[in-house]
Amino acid sequence: MNNPHHPSEPKADKAGVRRHNLSLVLRTVHEAGETTRAAVAARVGLTRAAVSSLVEQLLELGLLVESGKTFSGQAGRPGTVLKPAATGPAGLGVEINVDYVSVCVADLAGSDRVRRTEPLDNRTPGAPEVLRRAARITAEVLTEAARLDLRPTGVRLALPGLVSGGTVRQAPNLGWNHVEADALFAAALARDLPVASDNEANVAALAELWFGSLGELRTFLYVTGEIGVGGAIVLDGELLRGAHGFAGEIGHLPVTPDGPPCRCGSRGCLEQYAGQSALLRAAGTRSLDTLARRAKAAEPRTLTALAEAGRMLGVALSGAVNLLDTEAVVVGGIYPRLMPWLAPAAEAELDRRVLSGLTPRLRPASTTATTARGAAALVLREILADPLAYGG
Amino acid sequence: MNNPHHPSEPKADKAGVRRHNLSLVLRTVHEAGETTRAAVAARVGLTRAAVSSLVEQLLELGLLVESGKTFSGQAGRPGTVLKPAATGPAGLGVEINVDYVSVCVADLAGSDRVRRTEPLDNRTPGAPEVLRRAARITAEVLTEAARLDLRPTGVRLALPGLVSGGTVRQAPNLGWNHVEADALFAAALARDLPVASDNEANVAALAELWFGSLGELRTFLYVTGEIGVGGAIVLDGELLRGAHGFAGEIGHLPVTPDGPPCRCGSRGCLEQYAGQSALLRAAGTRSLDTLARRAKAAEPRTLTALAEAGRMLGVALSGAVNLLDTEAVVVGGIYPRLMPWLAPAAEAELDRRVLSGLTPRLRPASTTATTARGAAALVLREILADPLAYGG
Repeated sequence: MNNPHHPSEPKADKAGVRRHNLSLVLRTVHEAGETTRAAVAARVGLTRAAVSSLVEQLLELGLLVESGKTFSGQAGRPGTVLKPAATGPAGLGVEINVDYVSVCVADLAGSDRVRRTEPLDNRTPGAPEVLRRAARITAEVLTEAARLDLRPTGVRLALPGLVSGGTVRQAPNLGWNHVEADALFAAALARDLPVASDNEANVAALAELWFGSLGELRTFLYVTGEIGVGGAIVLDGELLRGAHGFAGEIGHLPVTPDGPPCRCGSRGCLEQYAGQSALLRAAGTRSLDTLARRAKAAEPRTLTALAEAGRMLGVALSGAVNLLDTEAVVVGGIYPRLMPWLAPAAEAELDRRVLSGLTPRLRPASTTATTARGAAALVLREILADPLAYGG
Repeated sequence: MNNPHHPSEPKADKAGVRRHNLSLVLRTVHEAGETTRAAVAARVGLTRAAVSSLVEQLLELGLLVESGKTFSGQAGRPGTVLKPAATGPAGLGVEINVDYVSVCVADLAGSDRVRRTEPLDNRTPGAPEVLRRAARITAEVLTEAARLDLRPTGVRLALPGLVSGGTVRQAPNLGWNHVEADALFAAALARDLPVASDNEANVAALAELWFGSLGELRTFLYVTGEIGVGGAIVLDGELLRGAHGFAGEIGHLPVTPDGPPCRCGSRGCLEQYAGQSALLRAAGTRSLDTLARRAKAAEPRTLTALAEAGRMLGVALSGAVNLLDTEAVVVGGIYPRLMPWLAPAAEAELDRRVLSGLTPRLRPASTTATTARGAAALVLREILADPLAYGG
């Protein structure tokens, strides 16, 4: 209670209110992309004078910029256009998946300014080596970001497994168990940057929400085809995290109780039918490009494999939709490019099995809404929440 | 904006604030069961004088009563004990299930003061006749309630199907499709009481939350074994209703894609293995009592049928837990009495299939938390939310 910097409570409160309002104004500009002081004032319900003072401080902190143009809105005289700064504090996202690492730096507008993806087999070398590789790519991306005058304030890792409190409890397709990912990555990167981990599908779903084409849709199930199958549930714009942070694992919904063994220790999990490994195996190829080419050429074995994967995806989705009554299902990862062959089989199952008859169609994830960009945006959220801590 | 009863805005606001505070005080006493003015004041953060004035009005409205005893709390001098009134405004709940109708009147304390259950085969006579029967039983219960000086202010129906806006969209085990349940029941009852419908498992889950033994637990999956299998999802004390109000239907989670046909039009739904009809069929009996007796006597066919139902319940629950990461699974309906034979098989599947390894145990629903009582409590919530509209 004795804080020398804030000797009197009212003073501390006033500073707190200003801090809050700086965040409010910065978030408003971030969401609008481009706007004016007058429009911000109208949106947040503060006076024009108060907003101007807050904007001045955000300009000084280097978090906002004015563009040369003026902008004639509905209300009052034209104002100078405000935008989030394209330099300075930024977010850094790192997706470590089973067969690639993808890194992204996003500026305060959310634009993915540096992108880097490297195919890597992350199944065999073990967690420390995989995290060292990811740190090496990240260091290169940081150098590139510095050239653009972008300064990431933190790193968010997206990992295909159960992640909680900086530890990967279980990532079957990486073969990881109880890996302290945050600490290992931070040690390998050796920069003064806070590191935090999250589940890959959770981050992908948030990326879709923020950068995709969902429009007004804010409740959906997200399913991503990777080596395995990941998933996330977004309810009214918020991730359903569950009791321990492990919700969304539709890849381990059993679709046949005595089906093929899964790397998780169970049997008949969805990912044993609709994950990339299972699908390529069934189609008799090792390459997704080959699979897609053969599908276009209507090669029978390929079409059968895709229809069966689609059918099982539809069975699992029917169960999930009956449980959650979600309005939409977004499919990401390898699925968007395979939609013409997967979706009919999946939707036939949904039509037959969704109790309400209100069958959601499958929507392909947006190509701009990458997981690494979503991870970078999670870092941006921290900057937007407290501009004073990061600006200047 | 021109309201003759509230000519000035501050006056209207003041009346609104008092109305809100009356609700706050009544809800606080309801939740405490027994309390004092001083304890209420401490709890809600109003002055003792303000609380006393609100309590006086609630006493006059007949919604609170003082008991003779005094109560020495931690703070200050002993006070007279306040309780919700045991007469006056009350809630009326009606559960219409496939083979019975159950009606309950709950007083303002939430106690189930009148209870009535009648076994009835509701599969064949069709919706109008079933709702007429339920209305007849309800009328008898109303007569009994009047004798106790209890005056229900509304009726809540709990139905085993997809319910939205007063209409049962689909209730496979009743054979109902697009039945306007509210209107039909209200016409048959012919009283001046508002009628509203809800899904039976949703109401059962709320009953468990309010009257069960969950303690601090406020996030759980509820599965109820009836003729079919119903379900509900409670997240942090709130029902997950879903996009159209149809969430929770775990009974129609497919457990084997090509399993036996279900009344819903799909195949291999959980309820075709773990619903009462399926279970009795597999065990070769028509009576649950016989089933339970044979299970106690370790009759092999009965044990096999129960183990298989438990296994499929476990398969479906594993999928649901992997999706939702719920801390607890509460089982109601016919399941609590069958726990010794169902639970081991179900929990073995959960142990094997829940990705996190954090396997919830099955908890039997409380016998005091009946669905009809939950439905009655939903009516009470309306009274508690606006005492002025119902008291006096």
